[in-house]
Amino acid sequence: MNENSLIYKTLSDTPLFKGQDSSFLSRMAESAVTLRCEKGKVLFVHDEQAERFYVIRHGWIKLFRETLDGAQAVIDITTTGDTFGETALFQNNLYPYSAEAVESSEVISLPLHLLNTEIDTNPQFTKSFLFSIAKEKDRQDKEIEHASIQNAPQRICCFLLRLTDQSNKGKTIIHLPYDKMFIAAKLGMQAETFSRALKKLKTDTGIRVKGSSIEVDNVEQLSNYACQACSFEFPCKDIKRKAS
Amino acid sequence: MNENSLIYKTLSDTPLFKGQDSSFLSRMAESAVTLRCEKGKVLFVHDEQAERFYVIRHGWIKLFRETLDGAQAVIDITTTGDTFGETALFQNNLYPYSAEAVESSEVISLPLHLLNTEIDTNPQFTKSFLFSIAKEKDRQDKEIEHASIQNAPQRICCFLLRLTDQSNKGKTIIHLPYDKMFIAAKLGMQAETFSRALKKLKTDTGIRVKGSSIEVDNVEQLSNYACQACSFEFPCKDIKRKAS
Repeated sequence: MNENSLIYKTLSDTPLFKGQDSSFLSRMAESAVTLRCEKGKVLFVHDEQAERFYVIRHGWIKLFRETLDGAQAVIDITTTGDTFGETALFQNNLYPYSAEAVESSEVISLPLHLLNTEIDTNPQFTKSFLFSIAKEKDRQDKEIEHASIQNAPQRICCFLLRLTDQSNKGKTIIHLPYDKMFIAAKLGMQAETFSRALKKLKTDTGIRVKGSSIEVDNVEQLSNYACQACSFEFPCKDIKRKAS
Repeated sequence: MNENSLIYKTLSDTPLFKGQDSSFLSRMAESAVTLRCEKGKVLFVHDEQAERFYVIRHGWIKLFRETLDGAQAVIDITTTGDTFGETALFQNNLYPYSAEAVESSEVISLPLHLLNTEIDTNPQFTKSFLFSIAKEKDRQDKEIEHASIQNAPQRICCFLLRLTDQSNKGKTIIHLPYDKMFIAAKLGMQAETFSRALKKLKTDTGIRVKGSSIEVDNVEQLSNYACQACSFEFPCKDIKRKAS
């Protein structure tokens, strides 16, 4: 596949563009550029004037903000098929966060004004954008719930469960998608809290951590452990990515 | 004003309906009903089939979910001009939370299918709904940031600052909008944590709590205290309600 066909293919697989016709995808693909980012590459910073938005082809991109006293708040860590930077449209065209590659990644960069034009002229896209943001908001609602209700080991357990094939209730191996340091940050935990909580989770459930792999003897036991402190039933209905 | 005019007036002041023309407002008002709710009245429960959505004329409505082990997570506490229940549209018409009046309140109840029809036929409304949800999502982003970065006294301080007239940097009195128990729940804190944190905030900043009033000698001091652990500048740009 040449670069243009690859871009078109990636855009057609992007959830935000789901259901859009080929003329829409061609309009987007025409001005798209592929960027290869080394680990640590900063794509844009919070409050900077936004000209482009991005679709991740592969890799992991951290979205974050920094406070006056230098602490970093991780808003999300996004991956294949996710878009980022597009919500600058709703923030007077200023990026609402900074974006940095946490692994070597490949992203497609598109002009933000294209989205603006579509919102003004393409009701089908606007509706689809509305549903997409509403789903994201719902996922965040659940994050807020978990931050207030689950204890730290339960939150790590929940993070792991969301990476597994939840139809399999028995033995499995979970592969951590990125460094534990970023998992801690994504869960809003200090490194020491994360470390202590992971230790307690291991003691309570018998999971074994081998580098970036987690050996689990019984997925159901993990769901009993975390999901009692969640208002939704297991398996989770809102997982957008298939377990790897 | 008679009941119908009152309903029309409330709907025209509702941020979600901002910029909509009189025919839109009339379509909504025609099927609207006013409900008076005593404190404790449950309007609907999580996962129930959704037929109606609501606009608050006055009072406070708590949106929450309950976990399997009986804990309660407060998603939001909403007031005058806020809508709730409408996002069931994006959840297969099931309410994504329960709703309960935490004070004696008055709400306007409207059929949910009206919103569905507007999304399908009225691009201007769909666009406005998109911007409204994107703003809400942005506010939540900030909540997630604060939950991970601010300590408990800073989070209470931030909650108080958002109730003040932020253009006044000196002396002021802040009126708590609802019971401290609900403020704790809204901030995702256990009652004891809240109580300890409020005590520390009083010691650190010299604020005085008199029932539901908080006497502040220096608003700027409060902003120095909380906003150093926030990635946005003071005064906050995203406050949707005027300070009372």
